[in-house]
Amino acid sequence: MLVVQKYGGTSVGDLDRIRNVARRIAKYRDEGHDVVVVVSAMAGETDRLLNLARELVPEPSPRELDMLVATGEQVSSALLAMALNAMGYPARSFVAFQIPIKTDELFGKARIKDIATERLRKELDEGRVVIVAGFQGITEDGEITTLGRGGSDTTAVALAAALKADVCEIFTDVDGVYTADPRIVPKARKIARISYDEMLELASMGAKVLEIRSVEFAKIYKVPVHVRSSFSDEPGTMVVEEDESMEKVLVSGVTYNRNEARISVYGVPDKPGMAAKIFGPIADEGIVVDMIIQTGRPDGRADMTFTVPKLEYKRAMEIVNRVAEEIGAEKVEGSEDIAKVSIVGAGMRAHPGVASKMFQVLADHGINIHMISTSEIKISCVIDEKYTELAVRALHEAFGLDREPETE
Amino acid sequence: MLVVQKYGGTSVGDLDRIRNVARRIAKYRDEGHDVVVVVSAMAGETDRLLNLARELVPEPSPRELDMLVATGEQVSSALLAMALNAMGYPARSFVAFQIPIKTDELFGKARIKDIATERLRKELDEGRVVIVAGFQGITEDGEITTLGRGGSDTTAVALAAALKADVCEIFTDVDGVYTADPRIVPKARKIARISYDEMLELASMGAKVLEIRSVEFAKIYKVPVHVRSSFSDEPGTMVVEEDESMEKVLVSGVTYNRNEARISVYGVPDKPGMAAKIFGPIADEGIVVDMIIQTGRPDGRADMTFTVPKLEYKRAMEIVNRVAEEIGAEKVEGSEDIAKVSIVGAGMRAHPGVASKMFQVLADHGINIHMISTSEIKISCVIDEKYTELAVRALHEAFGLDREPETE
Repeated sequence: MLVVQKYGGTSVGDLDRIRNVARRIAKYRDEGHDVVVVVSAMAGETDRLLNLARELVPEPSPRELDMLVATGEQVSSALLAMALNAMGYPARSFVAFQIPIKTDELFGKARIKDIATERLRKELDEGRVVIVAGFQGITEDGEITTLGRGGSDTTAVALAAALKADVCEIFTDVDGVYTADPRIVPKARKIARISYDEMLELASMGAKVLEIRSVEFAKIYKVPVHVRSSFSDEPGTMVVEEDESMEKVLVSGVTYNRNEARISVYGVPDKPGMAAKIFGPIADEGIVVDMIIQTGRPDGRADMTFTVPKLEYKRAMEIVNRVAEEIGAEKVEGSEDIAKVSIVGAGMRAHPGVASKMFQVLADHGINIHMISTSEIKISCVIDEKYTELAVRALHEAFGLDREPETE
Repeated sequence: MLVVQKYGGTSVGDLDRIRNVARRIAKYRDEGHDVVVVVSAMAGETDRLLNLARELVPEPSPRELDMLVATGEQVSSALLAMALNAMGYPARSFVAFQIPIKTDELFGKARIKDIATERLRKELDEGRVVIVAGFQGITEDGEITTLGRGGSDTTAVALAAALKADVCEIFTDVDGVYTADPRIVPKARKIARISYDEMLELASMGAKVLEIRSVEFAKIYKVPVHVRSSFSDEPGTMVVEEDESMEKVLVSGVTYNRNEARISVYGVPDKPGMAAKIFGPIADEGIVVDMIIQTGRPDGRADMTFTVPKLEYKRAMEIVNRVAEEIGAEKVEGSEDIAKVSIVGAGMRAHPGVASKMFQVLADHGINIHMISTSEIKISCVIDEKYTELAVRALHEAFGLDREPETE
């Protein structure tokens, strides 16, 4: 079996943990598997380098910033290879140019375009463990790039795709994907299998288990991803293609997000181009708008409500107040005390009653819904922040997530 | 003018010093010069990385050790480029593979084989300062190598040779090459110009101003090297081809080395292969022998005396005692309390009286000479360690080094 493994920063956070990772890899080798390992920088190292740069100059050049932070993974890769060699398991570490891992030219958030496999295959054929520095690539011109935060997940999945690996194991400090945040829902269960689409919805709502681009990559190339803990041998969560058993589960998980704020513009005149007038200046400021809802009124005017990151709320309100006056809207109002609660499940596609059940559950608990947005496999409701825990727990129970699903 | 500059670890030891270096480079740019800069790792960083590796495993793999420590210069290069960019002076940092700087495959002490100049020329032509990570290269197969301690000096001189630069400036924490160690000889003077050969002799005797391989490189490619302080604007010492004025100076400098110990084997039988029997086992243990002197005796037997590094003295004595018994030598004796005092000068070639004058000066001060070795432009005497300062000061005065030379 060919296994690609990725170890995050906490998993290689000190020399003892690096030795632990080496022992885990050795066990796979003893079982006869070929192993390609992707490592992040040792916990804290990327931040240390970034702080060094920001202390030096206010706005470090993106190219030089990538040269700087790419060293973090080179260090942890070399150390892990040393540990394995010392244990008698031949290993070699590689940085992007040596493979090469080719990316586009967007410093700081480059995208992987191509991975050559000749060198990797040769090393595996010669019986070596291959350690690859995660998070980085090189451009056609040989410039060093980085893939952005969490980019090592993407490196691992992309390597697994290129090598047609049997599985891509993401070792992290949590032991899998849960039906809900266990800190809020004590009865939350680890999900054994979840589809790429479901994982994408969960990741886009802030579940930090897997970087969203790595899931997109896994979906496109059908890479089975196993999310699991580097501190135990328990199986974690398999992220795989949707299958029949998944469709029988109405809801796979409940999530929440408290990092957004709501802005409402009431009485927007009934003229073409109003939405562009409001959202254009917000986008120009680099503020990302998430949910947008527009409703017509009997007088022809419209009410518009949308959410922005809480950190950008004040800036966004200033812009919206200015624009509202210009276009002659009646009133602007907003709130930072909101939360978005979502249910995700591949089974929703075939079962239209899920949304109304969600609304009913919230109503039964006296929770008012401010906004609703839906996708094929997700329903999100914006509610008052104070009801977050209550809503998540109630939905978790109502959709039967407290119990083991029968289909597994 | 095209200038290659090298800044050592203390010169880029913290962010303030990196800013200082950037300002110095900016001044050169303002004067219209093209500048290629080689930097060492920030002071202490290479040791930090080496310690990390040695704490992890007893004998780190050489290949991985080079992967690890090469990051030190990548960090300092990127930071310096950021500082220059922020000041409005376009700059880019480069690591070995991007140029490329090709070396052989001796990890930890690789030798530079070839440096391509196309990319560097292009960057200079586009008005950028080029920052190159010192101390490292890549092999034909794309493996990362390092050049050994002080290797950044070699990177700088090799770059200057490849680019046919007008001068290679080595910025360090001393302000030049002195006629003697100023801590011992208060009247020691900074030497304005010194020949490659003289510098080689000084470097080989432990003068830490320039790494010896960089001087060899400079000599072969006739690169004018300017050794100077990164903390002042004073000119330092020019290391250049020998010229007539240098030949008029009998002695350019006096040096000493207290890091060696002496071992004598008396009464070695007069048979072929005795020297090989003694020095073979020492070399097998990786112990470097410096001076070797053999004298015949009237009885046909020989006495052999040689020096080894003080740190290896005990190991060497064990070996020699064993071998001496095997070959039937009469006696082994040694001492750690010795010092080597040397005078160096291109003018010696034409003036045969220099050696006898040195012996006379030492005799006048009651200093006994244990060993003598000479080269074309150097005479070394091994004396009792306690006379080191006295000998250096006496020679410094006797050869007129306390005074400014007339030829300058």
